[in-house]
Amino acid sequence: MTQSNIPAFDQASAKRMQAILDNKTKPLGSLGRLEELAVNLAGITGSAKLDFSSKAIVLAAADHGVASKGVSLYPSEVTRQMVLNFMAGGAGVNVLARHAGAKVVVVDAGVAGESFAAAPGFYDRKQGSGKGSADLSAGPAMTLEQAKACLAAGAEVVADLAKQGVKMLGLGEMGIGNTTPSAAIAAVVMALPVEEVTGRGTGLDVEAWKKKVAVIQGAIALNKADAKDGMDVLVKLGGFEIGVLAGAILEASKRRMPVMLDGFISGAAALVAYRIDPACKDSLLAGHQSVEIGHRRIHEFLGLKPLLQLELRLGEGTGAAMAFMLVDAACKIVAEMATFDSAGVSQDKTGKDAFEKKEA
Amino acid sequence: MTQSNIPAFDQASAKRMQAILDNKTKPLGSLGRLEELAVNLAGITGSAKLDFSSKAIVLAAADHGVASKGVSLYPSEVTRQMVLNFMAGGAGVNVLARHAGAKVVVVDAGVAGESFAAAPGFYDRKQGSGKGSADLSAGPAMTLEQAKACLAAGAEVVADLAKQGVKMLGLGEMGIGNTTPSAAIAAVVMALPVEEVTGRGTGLDVEAWKKKVAVIQGAIALNKADAKDGMDVLVKLGGFEIGVLAGAILEASKRRMPVMLDGFISGAAALVAYRIDPACKDSLLAGHQSVEIGHRRIHEFLGLKPLLQLELRLGEGTGAAMAFMLVDAACKIVAEMATFDSAGVSQDKTGKDAFEKKEA
Repeated sequence: MTQSNIPAFDQASAKRMQAILDNKTKPLGSLGRLEELAVNLAGITGSAKLDFSSKAIVLAAADHGVASKGVSLYPSEVTRQMVLNFMAGGAGVNVLARHAGAKVVVVDAGVAGESFAAAPGFYDRKQGSGKGSADLSAGPAMTLEQAKACLAAGAEVVADLAKQGVKMLGLGEMGIGNTTPSAAIAAVVMALPVEEVTGRGTGLDVEAWKKKVAVIQGAIALNKADAKDGMDVLVKLGGFEIGVLAGAILEASKRRMPVMLDGFISGAAALVAYRIDPACKDSLLAGHQSVEIGHRRIHEFLGLKPLLQLELRLGEGTGAAMAFMLVDAACKIVAEMATFDSAGVSQDKTGKDAFEKKEA
Repeated sequence: MTQSNIPAFDQASAKRMQAILDNKTKPLGSLGRLEELAVNLAGITGSAKLDFSSKAIVLAAADHGVASKGVSLYPSEVTRQMVLNFMAGGAGVNVLARHAGAKVVVVDAGVAGESFAAAPGFYDRKQGSGKGSADLSAGPAMTLEQAKACLAAGAEVVADLAKQGVKMLGLGEMGIGNTTPSAAIAAVVMALPVEEVTGRGTGLDVEAWKKKVAVIQGAIALNKADAKDGMDVLVKLGGFEIGVLAGAILEASKRRMPVMLDGFISGAAALVAYRIDPACKDSLLAGHQSVEIGHRRIHEFLGLKPLLQLELRLGEGTGAAMAFMLVDAACKIVAEMATFDSAGVSQDKTGKDAFEKKEA
């Protein structure tokens, strides 16, 4: 691995943020995860002045050759139909992102069929010549060239968003069948049995789940990806949207832009990015814990505590969008809440600050 | 107990709401707790047309004679100082309620000292002649007359809010020492050992916690409240703000107005209300799970699943305000998300609806 160009987590800004919070009119630490979030955001951005007024969900979509193996309840056409739904603003993520005051940008990373018409907030970065990725149960999911193009596309989209003033990223995805490559990536990168990271996707029964596990086991045995090499994992077991999201994570990390993960698929993208440059880990926030069983394992592996547990299993960035509301809440606590001095409120009888207390 | 005048949960509206959600462009049930919340709200309100554009947090404040027994890290003056902070808009709950688009109304249920100046959104319902409630470790916390006045005040505030168009209530409280009466109520109503429902409040050490447990045990032994009689529990082990919140719950339930609980103290108020009229239970929503250990037990007892777990321990209604954001998210999903038909998206291969699936 080459030297990382991702800046380190800024402990000084994090500590400064905790001091700001400790002077707000509340018992020390009593806003729990909201305080933790504000402190974390200060460390990631390198500033105790939080500004996430502009946020975007990068929603990457692609199709998967392995979908033909019966790993999903839905036909592949749904990927394409849903992209149109995203662009029309009618999908779950559109509703929740609007609610959270964030925009949604859609990246065609490799949806089957012809290119979509140009539209504002849409990026055409289609890989795979309109056929989706190759079937990973029969060989590598993509070429090295395609994997590189996906990472570059993700980086490019983030650079473009940064230019527009976006300060925080959420990840989203759409791709019928994409819990299969995600489970394959999770099993290989974390060295776990396939059964422990493979869920029911959008609603498989036990029989279909067993078949899915077998397909993934076969793909792993056949492709022999190097678990320590993120690029190799992406090439052999990935998907185009997963590559784009991994590229987005790496670019955002370089720019000190926090990245709100969504569900299991964005978690798999984080594993790929982590194997390419482990320093990206500190820029990641876990938006929610989905019901996909492998998702919890990814959070544990990356040392992330999910902000929400709402039993979501939709993907698209819906969990990230919901978690954006907590980010705004944390920022407003920092910006708007009175201090003990300003409000004339007595502090507690110990007079210790939070850092002393933690050490006591 | 007299006949309940609280309307029953409306299963037909709940089922209608699930049918609406099942036709949205997403796998069945994939929005998890958000769907559950929408269904629950339809059942509570008796309508599949959700409208919670106007929401209010009822924040009741009072002082407690038992605070003189060293059960809190903060001096009683803080109750009064914080009421002024709430009225000035600078407290945590003000910030988070603004963020959630809800108003905060403050009720002086029995704060020590003289009356506050009149202000918009402020209700002067002071009990206890400016001395707070009596020390429950030395006798009943209040008279029957005071308990009735608290319940009536809570009902009156809710009636007034309903007249202003408020459609959903959140509960909040402020009262130095009030985790002590709350733990006493929780232990008695749920028949649990005091240690299992007594937490560290706003930051007690182990020594102080033991003392707090002993104070509560003494109060319970001395007062011999009838666990099945909510009014008796309130009189002997309550607090004025707890009485006001219990009154608010009962009135809101009668009006089919959902009530978002906050932390442990609002949970104790819910136990009192439940023992006065168990039918109020169906109107309750658990906003969050706080770190107070007794809080989880209350949720279990009332059959409530908290929406958020953010390690909050501030009270004031901060958890309820945060949960309001989820309510709005759920309502927007219902109102704004496209249907399979409208978006031209294919449904899954089983063609079953969610109710069939649950039964399968």
